[in-house]
Amino acid sequence: MAFTERSEPTRTAILSAARKLLTEQGYDGTTIRAVAAEVGIDPSMVMRYYGSKAGLFSAAVDVKLHLDEVPKVPANKLGEPLARHFLTRWEGDPSDEAIILLLRSAATNGVAAEHMRTIFDTQVARFVRRRIGTGADGTRRAGLVSSQLLGLALTRYVVPLSPVVKMNLDAVVSSVSPVLQYYLTGNLGSAVKARRKATTGS
Amino acid sequence: MAFTERSEPTRTAILSAARKLLTEQGYDGTTIRAVAAEVGIDPSMVMRYYGSKAGLFSAAVDVKLHLDEVPKVPANKLGEPLARHFLTRWEGDPSDEAIILLLRSAATNGVAAEHMRTIFDTQVARFVRRRIGTGADGTRRAGLVSSQLLGLALTRYVVPLSPVVKMNLDAVVSSVSPVLQYYLTGNLGSAVKARRKATTGS
Repeated sequence: MAFTERSEPTRTAILSAARKLLTEQGYDGTTIRAVAAEVGIDPSMVMRYYGSKAGLFSAAVDVKLHLDEVPKVPANKLGEPLARHFLTRWEGDPSDEAIILLLRSAATNGVAAEHMRTIFDTQVARFVRRRIGTGADGTRRAGLVSSQLLGLALTRYVVPLSPVVKMNLDAVVSSVSPVLQYYLTGNLGSAVKARRKATTGS
Repeated sequence: MAFTERSEPTRTAILSAARKLLTEQGYDGTTIRAVAAEVGIDPSMVMRYYGSKAGLFSAAVDVKLHLDEVPKVPANKLGEPLARHFLTRWEGDPSDEAIILLLRSAATNGVAAEHMRTIFDTQVARFVRRRIGTGADGTRRAGLVSSQLLGLALTRYVVPLSPVVKMNLDAVVSSVSPVLQYYLTGNLGSAVKARRKATTGS
């Protein structure tokens, strides 16, 4: 659907109201009616722009990871700038709170979980493919990178674990960088192979 | 409060009903009244045993990580059995679904988040202190271990990312073991120090 320039402020207001209500009430507690009331428009207007509650949600938390902004460094040095990119987006000014909101919603709601899955499956996988070029292996590497990044977001912002929260940004980046590097270019699974070898050899 | 043996079946039934409703409705959607109705008893009986909804929740998802069952191996070989311990608990027979339920609840509810925080802050921290003996550093190591383990639980069970779900148990264990080992005994932050040195030197 093409939008006229005139509709832009209304759409911005709808998305802003949706994010506010989603943060306060969660996905299940947020209705099209309440979003419309918050903006002071008719619910049919929200439906006209976004089609459904799921459509509104997707637009409100349309998370762009902006992975093209990660500095172009050699593959074996990519862990650190990738870690810093995420942390800075989450804690920068202005911070990207949409992904935190999405993570919170995804834990309890299927639509949000599907949306989050798409974002990580596509954006992170594409990034890994472009920068590392690992072929079929790249999808698994992207999944493992996502597991650590989302685990960090979870324990730092959503279910705050004190030692993770207390670290400053540089300390987190420096601790997590070697892990991302290993997932991106390391020999996945070498530990178990080594252990099996040792067991067989003894 | 001391419980008589006679009360045991009722308490088991209450906890089982609570877990069922928490899985289906989430923390906010689960009421003492609904749990009592599911068991076929008076709500006052639930209150008598568990005091409050928060108390009932804590009892229902009283997650014991059983970290004392992790094989006693040297500290520099601890990553693999620790990874295997968690994965096997989550996917074994019978599997421990309480932690998945807790993770789901913790993302949207303060009581559940606090409960999860306590479990990981205390049980994982104690494990690291006992097995690694790293002093003050141990708390941070425990936090980072938790960030990866919870990230794995999140992306494998709660917000399933396809490449993480598709890996079999051995593949996940072998991929994640070196990361846990690094968090347990590695030189945290070495990557950034190396980078800074390289930058200064150039």
